[in-house]
Amino acid sequence: MKIAVVGGGSTYTPELVKGLMEINDCVKIENVTFLDVKEAEEKFNVVFEFVKRMVKDKFKIEKTFDPKVAFDGADYIVFQFRPGMLSARINDEEIPLKYGLIGQETTGIGGFSAALRAFPLIEKYIELVEKYSKAFVINFTNPSGHITEFVLNYLKFDRFVGLCNIPINLLKNLSELIGCKIEDLFVKYYGLNHLTFLEKIFAKNEDVTQKIFQLLKMHLANVPGDFPADLIEILELYPSPYLRYYLFEKEMVEKLKKEGTRAKKVEKIEKDLLKLYESSDSIPQQLMLRGGSMYSTAAANLIKDLATNAGTIHIVNTKNNGAVTNIPNDYVLEIPCYVKANRVFPVSLGEADEFAVGLIHIVKMYERLTIEAYLYRSRKKALKALLLHPLGPGWQEAPKILDDILKANEKFIDLS
Amino acid sequence: MKIAVVGGGSTYTPELVKGLMEINDCVKIENVTFLDVKEAEEKFNVVFEFVKRMVKDKFKIEKTFDPKVAFDGADYIVFQFRPGMLSARINDEEIPLKYGLIGQETTGIGGFSAALRAFPLIEKYIELVEKYSKAFVINFTNPSGHITEFVLNYLKFDRFVGLCNIPINLLKNLSELIGCKIEDLFVKYYGLNHLTFLEKIFAKNEDVTQKIFQLLKMHLANVPGDFPADLIEILELYPSPYLRYYLFEKEMVEKLKKEGTRAKKVEKIEKDLLKLYESSDSIPQQLMLRGGSMYSTAAANLIKDLATNAGTIHIVNTKNNGAVTNIPNDYVLEIPCYVKANRVFPVSLGEADEFAVGLIHIVKMYERLTIEAYLYRSRKKALKALLLHPLGPGWQEAPKILDDILKANEKFIDLS
Amino acid sequence: MKIAVVGGGSTYTPELVKGLMEINDCVKIENVTFLDVKEAEEKFNVVFEFVKRMVKDKFKIEKTFDPKVAFDGADYIVFQFRPGMLSARINDEEIPLKYGLIGQETTGIGGFSAALRAFPLIEKYIELVEKYSKAFVINFTNPSGHITEFVLNYLKFDRFVGLCNIPINLLKNLSELIGCKIEDLFVKYYGLNHLTFLEKIFAKNEDVTQKIFQLLKMHLANVPGDFPADLIEILELYPSPYLRYYLFEKEMVEKLKKEGTRAKKVEKIEKDLLKLYESSDSIPQQLMLRGGSMYSTAAANLIKDLATNAGTIHIVNTKNNGAVTNIPNDYVLEIPCYVKANRVFPVSLGEADEFAVGLIHIVKMYERLTIEAYLYRSRKKALKALLLHPLGPGWQEAPKILDDILKANEKFIDLS
Amino acid sequence: MKIAVVGGGSTYTPELVKGLMEINDCVKIENVTFLDVKEAEEKFNVVFEFVKRMVKDKFKIEKTFDPKVAFDGADYIVFQFRPGMLSARINDEEIPLKYGLIGQETTGIGGFSAALRAFPLIEKYIELVEKYSKAFVINFTNPSGHITEFVLNYLKFDRFVGLCNIPINLLKNLSELIGCKIEDLFVKYYGLNHLTFLEKIFAKNEDVTQKIFQLLKMHLANVPGDFPADLIEILELYPSPYLRYYLFEKEMVEKLKKEGTRAKKVEKIEKDLLKLYESSDSIPQQLMLRGGSMYSTAAANLIKDLATNAGTIHIVNTKNNGAVTNIPNDYVLEIPCYVKANRVFPVSLGEADEFAVGLIHIVKMYERLTIEAYLYRSRKKALKALLLHPLGPGWQEAPKILDDILKANEKFIDLS
Repeated sequence: MKIAVVGGGSTYTPELVKGLMEINDCVKIENVTFLDVKEAEEKFNVVFEFVKRMVKDKFKIEKTFDPKVAFDGADYIVFQFRPGMLSARINDEEIPLKYGLIGQETTGIGGFSAALRAFPLIEKYIELVEKYSKAFVINFTNPSGHITEFVLNYLKFDRFVGLCNIPINLLKNLSELIGCKIEDLFVKYYGLNHLTFLEKIFAKNEDVTQKIFQLLKMHLANVPGDFPADLIEILELYPSPYLRYYLFEKEMVEKLKKEGTRAKKVEKIEKDLLKLYESSDSIPQQLMLRGGSMYSTAAANLIKDLATNAGTIHIVNTKNNGAVTNIPNDYVLEIPCYVKANRVFPVSLGEADEFAVGLIHIVKMYERLTIEAYLYRSRKKALKALLLHPLGPGWQEAPKILDDILKANEKFIDLS
Repeated sequence: MKIAVVGGGSTYTPELVKGLMEINDCVKIENVTFLDVKEAEEKFNVVFEFVKRMVKDKFKIEKTFDPKVAFDGADYIVFQFRPGMLSARINDEEIPLKYGLIGQETTGIGGFSAALRAFPLIEKYIELVEKYSKAFVINFTNPSGHITEFVLNYLKFDRFVGLCNIPINLLKNLSELIGCKIEDLFVKYYGLNHLTFLEKIFAKNEDVTQKIFQLLKMHLANVPGDFPADLIEILELYPSPYLRYYLFEKEMVEKLKKEGTRAKKVEKIEKDLLKLYESSDSIPQQLMLRGGSMYSTAAANLIKDLATNAGTIHIVNTKNNGAVTNIPNDYVLEIPCYVKANRVFPVSLGEADEFAVGLIHIVKMYERLTIEAYLYRSRKKALKALLLHPLGPGWQEAPKILDDILKANEKFIDLS
Repeated sequence: MKIAVVGGGSTYTPELVKGLMEINDCVKIENVTFLDVKEAEEKFNVVFEFVKRMVKDKFKIEKTFDPKVAFDGADYIVFQFRPGMLSARINDEEIPLKYGLIGQETTGIGGFSAALRAFPLIEKYIELVEKYSKAFVINFTNPSGHITEFVLNYLKFDRFVGLCNIPINLLKNLSELIGCKIEDLFVKYYGLNHLTFLEKIFAKNEDVTQKIFQLLKMHLANVPGDFPADLIEILELYPSPYLRYYLFEKEMVEKLKKEGTRAKKVEKIEKDLLKLYESSDSIPQQLMLRGGSMYSTAAANLIKDLATNAGTIHIVNTKNNGAVTNIPNDYVLEIPCYVKANRVFPVSLGEADEFAVGLIHIVKMYERLTIEAYLYRSRKKALKALLLHPLGPGWQEAPKILDDILKANEKFIDLS
Repeated sequence: MKIAVVGGGSTYTPELVKGLMEINDCVKIENVTFLDVKEAEEKFNVVFEFVKRMVKDKFKIEKTFDPKVAFDGADYIVFQFRPGMLSARINDEEIPLKYGLIGQETTGIGGFSAALRAFPLIEKYIELVEKYSKAFVINFTNPSGHITEFVLNYLKFDRFVGLCNIPINLLKNLSELIGCKIEDLFVKYYGLNHLTFLEKIFAKNEDVTQKIFQLLKMHLANVPGDFPADLIEILELYPSPYLRYYLFEKEMVEKLKKEGTRAKKVEKIEKDLLKLYESSDSIPQQLMLRGGSMYSTAAANLIKDLATNAGTIHIVNTKNNGAVTNIPNDYVLEIPCYVKANRVFPVSLGEADEFAVGLIHIVKMYERLTIEAYLYRSRKKALKALLLHPLGPGWQEAPKILDDILKANEKFIDLS
């Protein structure tokens, strides 16, 4: 089995490699090829040398700047690149804040600029994946929801899922709260990436939703700055933590302004991490600060289960295909899927809650307008997308913020 | 033919009566019975005496406080009552403003409190309509969208449409812009009441959409305070004027704060009007200030065309029933319908635009949560509704604003 | 206005021309160009000369074998050609009978072979219509349901409706039964061409369904050989007369065997008609024997109403587009449409009856398999189509009957 | 865990008990209670005594004629009763044959009379199941498709699946053909009970559809009387063996007439079996002749997997719920489901084939008309059902055959 990793120079790479080493007994990895861009060469070298020391001779690893070399004959490809690297993310987060809007790299306007920057690269890579391989692609590149919508519904490439580390962490937390194994759980969980809703939890044949909601409520009450304790009771849903940007928009904007953007902090963490990578043989504690906990477990386990015809459930971003019956079949959703035959099959969940349905539709339409803004190089569609998003600007600010975003990303995208 | 008017003491009544007098040749009205509540008796008397002078002996008119008397044997019933009268509307508009939110009687939080106040009365009246008549009901009571959703989908009473004076004014304006008769037009127009979108216009077999959009653009450019001139070009849609609350939320809140609410102004106009009604025999010019232009034309023509099997098109609020193919069949929408057999049949329009689809879904889900808050007397659902609306409060303000609304409307609604 | 008629040599042409003469005051026809094929030249000449004497100088008429000449600048095009002329129809009707199956030119296996013969010609003509005109096409060529499905869903040409003379005759009969004008009626009528169902009838705002069904029942009881009197009562539907092939399969096969096919009779009628056309100046009584009563009225009125933005209802074959809510949007159905803006807009009808739904689906799937058999030149799909049709052969006979059909039509279609 | 078996006197019971003994290590059965009717007492005693000798003290077994005793506190309930016992089945099969129609107990008219006989009993039992237990019901009573449609969509009882031994045998055969374990397979399989279609087969991540179809083709070629070898190639589907009644209607009617009905044969087998049961301690070979191979495996494994939260796939009859995207959500289909949380969740399969779609719809509408004939005691609906079924009678025979069926089943059902 050959695995290719796009964005191999990422500081996440060591964790991914650790995950791959753990599944190696099961799936017999022969080759892992890391791909990155010239601009990231220095960082890429540091990470690769560190990974080399980790892997030893467990499997062959390679480093390349040529997608053909990476994709050729690959069985699984992981997309974890950040278009424009961290400096671009800083813009994604700071431009909206200037206008009093949420500055966040996936939700709201930050996700909009990140998506516009990602689409041309995703389009190019998917073309090359199709040309050189029959690989199945697992995407972590943000904003993962937009990108999966783009690939499945617009590029019509279907060996592709969007993955996120939130579901696996959620399941882990739930299993710990209830005292069972992750495999004992089944959840009615659905939504768009970073806009998901947990509606029901079953553990060992028992509907434990109310029990868990009570536990979560108590738990939340003790975590200052977290969701308020009675949120779950009001919504009758446990939402993604990113819902705070919708429910606490003003407060979050204030917080981001005061504390500075996440991008700036990550920049500092990355520098420290790279220094540690230069000198160590095992993954440093500090990687935890980087976020993305259990990212490697999610990716490696999905590859293992795809490759071994496992018949397990993974929560991934894929086309709804009937799973949520009051959402159109073609919407890409983050939902539990049965993993078999090197494919993912959504599992029927019935109807989604009205609160969730309202938000899912408006944000999906925003996603599609964003995608079409790219595809048709349409400034109009871009403005429509911005105006539609519940966290987006009003008419007065929309053109200005769009100009700022286009200017900051002019190397990546040109609408005219 | 007997017509009943619920809210007969409204200052609109004379205009409605004028409309009925105009269709009288066609439809042979025998009796028009006006119903109102004791609290409005004084005003009701003034209006009724004025109407008596208008009608002379064209048809019989009656005044009653008893719904049985009004509905018994009625063929058409017009709902134009305002639950709680103007003083309640003042609350609808002022409470949200206190929290920096849009204060408007149909859109946003003002519509929410108006709806909660209207539901119990609507429920009671519909029960009596069913009991005493086979009448078809035409609703003008605000918020008309919520109420039609409630009646068609929750009360399951189907001889009911919601009517608004915006579509008829729009068609009149379009026909003047293009220089043709209203009957020469056909429009692809859809949405929720006060959240509608005009996507295509045909005049005498020609697609005049671009031509009209250009004319409207020029027109808009000359009307300060109106939509900006390039709005239609960006959206590729001509929206309801109420969309300004979404696109110019901040600016509109400022404007409302500065200028005072509409309710206050209307209070003043009403007083003047009533004084004029006392002394005159024909409709005073000042009624125009009251708003609701062409309201009587819309209602009277709909009654005429229903009664005469006319085969004309009216834009009304009714169940989608397949007309807009990418919106669920059961959503109540404001759409063009073929009027025949004393019924309205939506006419197939194809797909709605993505921008419109996003807003329609989120506001429809908010409408349904509001309705369910009433039906289940559920504070939870009420909060969910408030949190979901794009113009609604965040988590911090939602419980406070709900408390204020419930307190102000405690005579009408109790969630507990 | 220019009108083109494909299959101008048809013996129906004079009736069509009569219809066009009747609408001429309204729509100002400038030119009617008749197109036919060389093989039909002799007949074409006779018909054209007769038509010339009819029209005099009311409008200009032309005769051509060149589609470019006919289509160039046309506003409306009528397809009324019979691919392979009557001799081919004889095969359509006789081959199935050999195998004990219904021999009929539209329903069952006769429709299958007629469709396969028509598709390549329709494909060619539609290409030329698009190339040389912006015309709207009205199709009478049989089997009209298959052909409209093919044009709208596979060729994706949308200025096209399938027309049939059954609905207009039905409405005429209903209006006579009830004693009102056709315009006073509104019907819930739906299905595939020649597989339609009348479920509700409204006359002047009254639901007269039960009254009409009782009248029809009495009427049927007096017409030997017709549907049995209690059929409508059992089905709670008044079906197309062609449903007899489904409900009386055995009896109809016997009848066809005994009486000989319709094609043979028509052949005789046509000969007589042509002789009369040679010598007369006005339409001979004998044309009534030809069938297709009111065909010209249906076509001419549709052209008139399309051209004059009339806002009337016509029953035509077009995409469902939501009108029947429990049938997919993309199925071509025969349904009432609002005619406006030179287009047809289906009018919402609600749910179809279960009996109708079952038959509509299976016959639609058969239609699509037939179309795909042509498009992919697939013998497999052709066999699947035959095996699926409720009036089709079993496994043993299917390949033989397919061979016979392909052999008889080898000039038109080759699957291999 | 308590299990109840309705129809405990069935000769199948020993096999079911064997299955339960096999899963006993996993699920700890405490009590199995057998329920039957007084009319079957003699047979019931023989079977129960035999089962007693089989089970020894593995778990407690009980015998009762009182549903309350059987259902009270049950966790799983198996319906395997035959309403009217074998003598009624003989009518189901012989009445249609008199009219030259397929005489078979599930497909066609035999299924119609069996369903009408079963509905009142099912309705009564489901009421009692709800009253006395929280059990999940597994249904084998024929016709299983009709019954599951009835219970899920009309009785609105949702802890219910229809089970059939065909899928498990199919999977076993496929796994043997391809040389893998059943768990290695995933199939795109869908349809109505006894009208199913296998469209795709994956084995260990490989799409083996073409390979298997070739093997099946060779295999079929060697089995005289079986489907013809090229059937799969033409249909591009591997259908249920019951499709032969559709594709070989005439031939099957002849065969049934010549060979006599299955019911008669089963009567003989049952007598022999009961004699053997009286004297033996283990299941006699002759049970294989009875049909229903692997029935016990299917039922026992489903109970085990439901009870143990297994996360395996079982093919059962349940509501589509989006799994087949071009079939309505509410149709009960036989489809692969993920078994978890003591529930079954359909797995998304995408679109069904056109040939299958056509048949599924018409037979589903027939099923619903049959159910409604029972619910409304409507002779009309019963006739509509008979007329709609592709294997049903024409208009002339329908009333006669309905009379014969109602007469033969007058103890069970009365439509008037």
